[in-house]
Amino acid sequence: MAVEKRALRLNTRGDTDILNITPQIAREVEASGVSSGVVTLFITGSTAGITTVEYEPGLIQDLREAWERLIPKGIDYHHDRHQGEGNGYAHVRASLLGPFLSIPFIHRKLLLGTWQQVVLIDFDNRPRSREVVLQIMGEP
Amino acid sequence: MAVEKRALRLNTRGDTDILNITPQIAREVEASGVSSGVVTLFITGSTAGITTVEYEPGLIQDLREAWERLIPKGIDYHHDRHQGEGNGYAHVRASLLGPFLSIPFIHRKLLLGTWQQVVLIDFDNRPRSREVVLQIMGEP
Amino acid sequence: MAVEKRALRLNTRGDTDILNITPQIAREVEASGVSSGVVTLFITGSTAGITTVEYEPGLIQDLREAWERLIPKGIDYHHDRHQGEGNGYAHVRASLLGPFLSIPFIHRKLLLGTWQQVVLIDFDNRPRSREVVLQIMGEP
Repeated sequence: MAVEKRALRLNTRGDTDILNITPQIAREVEASGVSSGVVTLFITGSTAGITTVEYEPGLIQDLREAWERLIPKGIDYHHDRHQGEGNGYAHVRASLLGPFLSIPFIHRKLLLGTWQQVVLIDFDNRPRSREVVLQIMGEP
Repeated sequence: MAVEKRALRLNTRGDTDILNITPQIAREVEASGVSSGVVTLFITGSTAGITTVEYEPGLIQDLREAWERLIPKGIDYHHDRHQGEGNGYAHVRASLLGPFLSIPFIHRKLLLGTWQQVVLIDFDNRPRSREVVLQIMGEP
Repeated sequence: MAVEKRALRLNTRGDTDILNITPQIAREVEASGVSSGVVTLFITGSTAGITTVEYEPGLIQDLREAWERLIPKGIDYHHDRHQGEGNGYAHVRASLLGPFLSIPFIHRKLLLGTWQQVVLIDFDNRPRSREVVLQIMGEP
């Protein structure tokens, strides 16, 4: 069994910025010493999350509008009263979306659908430098 | 360590069709050469997702109604203007729910709760043929 | 490769009770015979879920209020008509949040963000005794 830890460093613009990170993940899995298994992505932060989507400008806008309807920026959050950073909405969105994604791969190739892209969503209200951990596990 | 890839092929009716796939997953894990570990399910498509629920007709209807309230079908989506397939809502729902589920198992038996079933939710607006990948990993 | 199954037993108060379970998980991973890999948490129940959040009283209240807005307790659920337990809302919330979380670790230390805590959310309408399964997998 092999375990290989990799990490992506990404700069985001904040405000529900949605980044396609599929090429970087595919590259790390391909360069690894693990031929078949699962890669677990984990974003080490409380105001961002990971999911999949067809990465197309219309849908990216739809996603951002849906998050604004589901957990609006403009209402009061207790977090903002205590901490004053104004990003309470971002914490709640991230908690609902979740910080992780596990993707199976075979022969160092991710088993994604044709139009299915992996995205990092940064809900925070300012640009951030983010780290996504990749734990690649499986057969050498 | 052992890694075994399996796949389920499923026909869905679309329109937030909710299928109980627990028996098929249990069968694949039981038939595998892996005795203890984790099975990672992944749906290779952008308009469907995977989760757990007590599979009971009342709840299935509740789930479908909740999705309609959270991300309605009847509003405008930018995706539909660009692509014209009318399934923008399905993409957004799938992205919020997530395409994967990881379930621990011991002695080839899934560690689910008594009433906890694994479901595939197909949000798309037409019948589809779907593939769910199962990556079974652990001790032989 | 090593696979070690652990379990946490927790008493919750119900009604979207949010428990910080990070210390217990960190302790189990540290005490395990696995040095680097992934721990998969799974709650074996249909009315609770697992996610991450900055565990701070303001945010905990924000989370509870967001869930009440997203999937309200006070509306009619088909499940409650059939079963009469009045926890239909809890099933729907749990299904949306998801029952699992996978966290990478290195040298028996979880790779979480500084303010990122793992929480069990019990949506049920009464106190429950809960079991969270931990499947710890990786290199010895």
